[in-house]
Amino acid sequence: MSANEQFDGVSVIKKANVYFDGKCVSHAVVFPDGTRKTLGVILPSELDFNTGSPEIMEVLAGRCTVQLAGSEVVTEYGAGQSFSVPAESRFHIVTLEALHYVCHYG
Amino acid sequence: MSANEQFDGVSVIKKANVYFDGKCVSHAVVFPDGTRKTLGVILPSELDFNTGSPEIMEVLAGRCTVQLAGSEVVTEYGAGQSFSVPAESRFHIVTLEALHYVCHYG
Repeated sequence: MSANEQFDGVSVIKKANVYFDGKCVSHAVVFPDGTRKTLGVILPSELDFNTGSPEIMEVLAGRCTVQLAGSEVVTEYGAGQSFSVPAESRFHIVTLEALHYVCHYG
Repeated sequence: MSANEQFDGVSVIKKANVYFDGKCVSHAVVFPDGTRKTLGVILPSELDFNTGSPEIMEVLAGRCTVQLAGSEVVTEYGAGQSFSVPAESRFHIVTLEALHYVCHYG
Protein backbone atom coordinates (compact mmCIF):
# COMPACT_ATOMS: atom_id res chain seq x y z
CA MET A 1 0.00 0.00 0.00
CA SER A 2 1.44 3.39 -0.95
CA ALA A 3 2.40 6.10 1.54
CA ASN A 4 -0.45 8.10 0.10
CA GLU A 5 -2.95 5.59 1.39
CA GLN A 6 -1.77 5.30 4.97
CA PHE A 7 -0.07 7.19 7.80
CA ASP A 8 2.97 5.42 9.23
CA GLY A 9 4.54 5.61 12.68
CA VAL A 10 1.51 7.19 14.32
CA SER A 11 -0.67 6.63 17.36
CA VAL A 12 -4.34 6.00 16.81
CA ILE A 13 -7.04 6.46 19.41
CA LYS A 14 -9.04 3.24 19.64
CA LYS A 15 -12.44 4.75 20.36
CA ALA A 16 -14.11 6.51 17.45
CA ASN A 17 -15.79 9.89 17.43
CA VAL A 18 -19.45 9.53 16.48
CA TYR A 19 -21.35 12.64 15.43
CA PHE A 20 -24.87 13.25 14.16
CA ASP A 21 -26.20 9.83 15.18
CA GLY A 22 -23.40 8.13 13.29
CA LYS A 23 -23.67 10.11 10.07
CA CYS A 24 -20.06 11.10 10.76
CA VAL A 25 -17.59 8.63 12.29
CA SER A 26 -13.90 9.44 12.72
CA HIS A 27 -10.77 8.09 14.36
CA ALA A 28 -8.08 10.40 15.70
CA VAL A 29 -4.44 9.94 14.73
CA VAL A 30 -1.53 11.54 16.60
CA PHE A 31 1.84 12.09 14.91
CA PRO A 32 5.20 11.87 16.68
CA ASP A 33 5.40 15.70 16.74
CA GLY A 34 2.05 15.86 18.54
CA THR A 35 0.06 16.90 15.46
CA ARG A 36 -3.45 15.49 15.50
CA LYS A 37 -5.58 14.63 12.47
CA THR A 38 -8.83 12.74 12.13
CA LEU A 39 -9.72 10.13 9.53
CA GLY A 40 -13.40 9.87 8.92
CA VAL A 41 -16.46 9.15 6.88
CA ILE A 42 -19.57 11.26 6.37
CA LEU A 43 -22.48 9.13 5.19
CA PRO A 44 -24.94 10.55 2.65
CA SER A 45 -26.52 13.47 4.50
CA GLU A 46 -26.76 17.23 4.84
CA LEU A 47 -24.99 18.52 7.94
CA ASP A 48 -23.63 21.64 9.61
CA PHE A 49 -20.23 21.34 11.25
CA ASN A 50 -18.71 23.85 13.66
CA THR A 51 -14.97 24.39 13.83
CA GLY A 52 -12.79 25.16 16.84
CA SER A 53 -9.37 25.29 15.23
CA PRO A 54 -9.01 26.09 11.54
CA GLU A 55 -9.54 22.93 9.51
CA ILE A 56 -8.42 21.64 6.15
CA MET A 57 -10.74 18.91 4.96
CA GLU A 58 -8.96 16.64 2.45
CA VAL A 59 -11.34 14.49 0.45
CA LEU A 60 -10.06 10.94 -0.11
CA ALA A 61 -13.12 9.54 -1.85
CA GLY A 62 -16.71 10.49 -2.50
CA ARG A 63 -18.19 13.86 -3.45
CA CYS A 64 -19.67 16.73 -1.49
CA THR A 65 -20.86 20.29 -1.83
CA VAL A 66 -19.74 22.77 0.79
CA GLN A 67 -20.96 26.21 1.77
CA LEU A 68 -18.86 28.13 4.27
CA ALA A 69 -20.55 30.33 6.88
CA GLY A 70 -21.16 33.82 5.53
CA SER A 71 -20.68 32.79 1.92
CA GLU A 72 -23.23 32.43 -0.86
CA VAL A 73 -20.91 30.15 -2.79
CA VAL A 74 -21.51 26.41 -2.91
CA THR A 75 -18.49 24.47 -4.15
CA GLU A 76 -18.26 20.82 -5.09
CA TYR A 77 -15.26 18.74 -3.99
CA GLY A 78 -14.14 15.23 -4.86
CA ALA A 79 -11.22 12.88 -4.32
CA GLY A 80 -7.87 14.65 -4.15
CA GLN A 81 -9.41 18.04 -3.39
CA SER A 82 -9.43 19.98 -0.12
CA PHE A 83 -11.24 22.88 1.42
CA SER A 84 -10.30 25.16 4.31
CA VAL A 85 -12.56 26.33 7.09
CA PRO A 86 -11.58 29.18 9.45
CA ALA A 87 -11.44 28.77 13.24
CA GLU A 88 -14.64 29.30 15.23
CA SER A 89 -16.72 29.06 12.10
CA ARG A 90 -18.99 26.51 10.47
CA PHE A 91 -19.77 24.90 7.16
CA HIS A 92 -22.75 23.26 5.55
CA ILE A 93 -21.91 20.04 3.73
CA VAL A 94 -24.04 17.84 1.50
CA THR A 95 -22.73 14.37 0.75
CA LEU A 96 -24.46 12.31 -1.92
CA GLU A 97 -22.23 9.31 -1.38
CA ALA A 98 -20.01 8.29 1.54
CA LEU A 99 -17.29 10.92 1.88
CA HIS A 100 -13.92 9.68 3.13
CA TYR A 101 -11.71 12.43 4.50
CA VAL A 102 -8.65 13.44 6.46
CA CYS A 103 -9.19 16.50 8.65
CA HIS A 104 -6.06 18.57 9.31
CA TYR A 105 -6.20 21.07 12.20
CA GLY A 106 -4.44 24.28 13.16
CA MET B 1 -3.96 9.30 27.19
CA SER B 2 -3.12 5.83 28.49
CA ALA B 3 -1.66 3.03 26.40
CA ASN B 4 -4.95 1.26 26.87
CA GLU B 5 -6.76 3.93 24.88
CA GLN B 6 -4.49 4.09 21.84
CA PHE B 7 -2.16 2.03 19.65
CA ASP B 8 1.32 3.54 19.24
CA GLY B 9 3.85 3.18 16.44
CA VAL B 10 1.36 1.83 13.94
CA SER B 11 0.28 2.51 10.38
CA VAL B 12 -3.33 3.43 9.79
CA ILE B 13 -5.13 3.14 6.47
CA LYS B 14 -6.69 6.51 5.67
CA LYS B 15 -9.82 5.26 3.93
CA ALA B 16 -12.43 3.67 6.15
CA ASN B 17 -14.30 0.42 5.61
CA VAL B 18 -18.02 1.08 5.40
CA TYR B 19 -20.39 -1.87 5.78
CA PHE B 20 -24.19 -2.20 5.90
CA ASP B 21 -24.86 1.30 4.56
CA GLY B 22 -22.64 2.80 7.22
CA LYS B 23 -24.05 0.91 10.20
CA CYS B 24 -20.49 -0.37 10.63
CA VAL B 25 -17.49 1.88 9.97
CA SER B 26 -13.92 0.79 10.69
CA HIS B 27 -10.34 1.87 10.11
CA ALA B 28 -7.55 -0.66 9.63
CA VAL B 29 -4.37 -0.47 11.69
CA VAL B 30 -1.15 -2.31 10.78
CA PHE B 31 1.48 -3.08 13.43
CA PRO B 32 5.24 -3.16 12.77
CA ASP B 33 5.16 -6.99 12.73
CA GLY B 34 2.51 -6.92 9.99
CA THR B 35 -0.40 -7.75 12.29
CA ARG B 36 -3.61 -6.09 11.19
CA LYS B 37 -6.51 -5.03 13.43
CA THR B 38 -9.54 -2.89 12.78
CA LEU B 39 -11.00 -0.19 14.99
CA GLY B 40 -14.66 0.37 14.44
CA VAL B 41 -18.13 1.34 15.46
CA ILE B 42 -21.39 -0.52 14.95
CA LEU B 43 -24.35 1.83 15.20
CA PRO B 44 -27.57 0.63 16.85
CA SER B 45 -28.73 -2.17 14.57
CA GLU B 46 -29.15 -5.90 14.13
CA LEU B 47 -26.60 -7.34 11.71
CA ASP B 48 -25.03 -10.60 10.51
CA PHE B 49 -21.28 -10.57 10.00
CA ASN B 50 -19.29 -13.22 8.14
CA THR B 51 -15.74 -14.06 9.13
CA GLY B 52 -12.82 -15.03 6.93
CA SER B 53 -10.06 -15.41 9.52
CA PRO B 54 -10.93 -16.18 13.12
CA GLU B 55 -11.81 -12.96 14.92
CA ILE B 56 -11.69 -11.72 18.48
CA MET B 57 -14.04 -8.79 18.93
CA GLU B 58 -12.95 -6.65 21.89
CA VAL B 59 -15.67 -4.29 23.08
CA LEU B 60 -14.35 -0.85 24.06
CA ALA B 61 -17.69 0.81 24.77
CA GLY B 62 -21.37 0.14 24.29
CA ARG B 63 -23.31 -3.09 24.70
CA CYS B 64 -24.34 -5.86 22.34
CA THR B 65 -25.83 -9.31 22.26
CA VAL B 66 -24.16 -11.91 20.09
CA GLN B 67 -25.28 -15.26 18.74
CA LEU B 68 -22.65 -17.37 16.98
CA ALA B 69 -23.62 -19.47 13.95
CA GLY B 70 -24.90 -22.87 15.00
CA SER B 71 -25.45 -21.83 18.59
CA GLU B 72 -28.70 -21.26 20.47
CA VAL B 73 -26.93 -19.13 23.05
CA VAL B 74 -27.25 -15.36 23.03
CA THR B 75 -24.62 -13.64 25.15
CA GLU B 76 -24.41 -10.01 26.16
CA TYR B 77 -21.07 -8.18 26.06
CA GLY B 78 -20.00 -4.75 27.26
CA ALA B 79 -16.88 -2.63 27.68
CA GLY B 80 -13.80 -4.67 28.53
CA GLN B 81 -15.29 -7.94 27.30
CA SER B 82 -14.43 -9.92 24.16
CA PHE B 83 -15.91 -12.69 22.11
CA SER B 84 -14.29 -15.06 19.62
CA VAL B 85 -15.68 -16.09 16.25
CA PRO B 86 -14.24 -19.05 14.29
CA ALA B 87 -12.91 -18.69 10.73
CA GLU B 88 -15.38 -19.00 7.84
CA SER B 89 -18.30 -18.55 10.19
CA ARG B 90 -20.75 -15.82 11.07
CA PHE B 91 -22.37 -14.11 14.00
CA HIS B 92 -25.59 -12.23 14.62
CA ILE B 93 -25.11 -9.05 16.64
CA VAL B 94 -27.65 -6.67 18.14
CA THR B 95 -26.35 -3.30 19.29
CA LEU B 96 -28.66 -1.10 21.32
CA GLU B 97 -26.14 1.75 21.53
CA ALA B 98 -23.06 2.54 19.45
CA LEU B 99 -20.59 -0.30 19.94
CA HIS B 100 -16.91 0.66 19.80
CA TYR B 101 -14.61 -2.27 19.16
CA VAL B 102 -11.18 -3.54 18.21
CA CYS B 103 -11.24 -6.56 15.93
CA HIS B 104 -8.23 -8.87 16.23
CA TYR B 105 -7.66 -11.39 13.43
CA GLY B 106 -5.90 -14.71 12.99
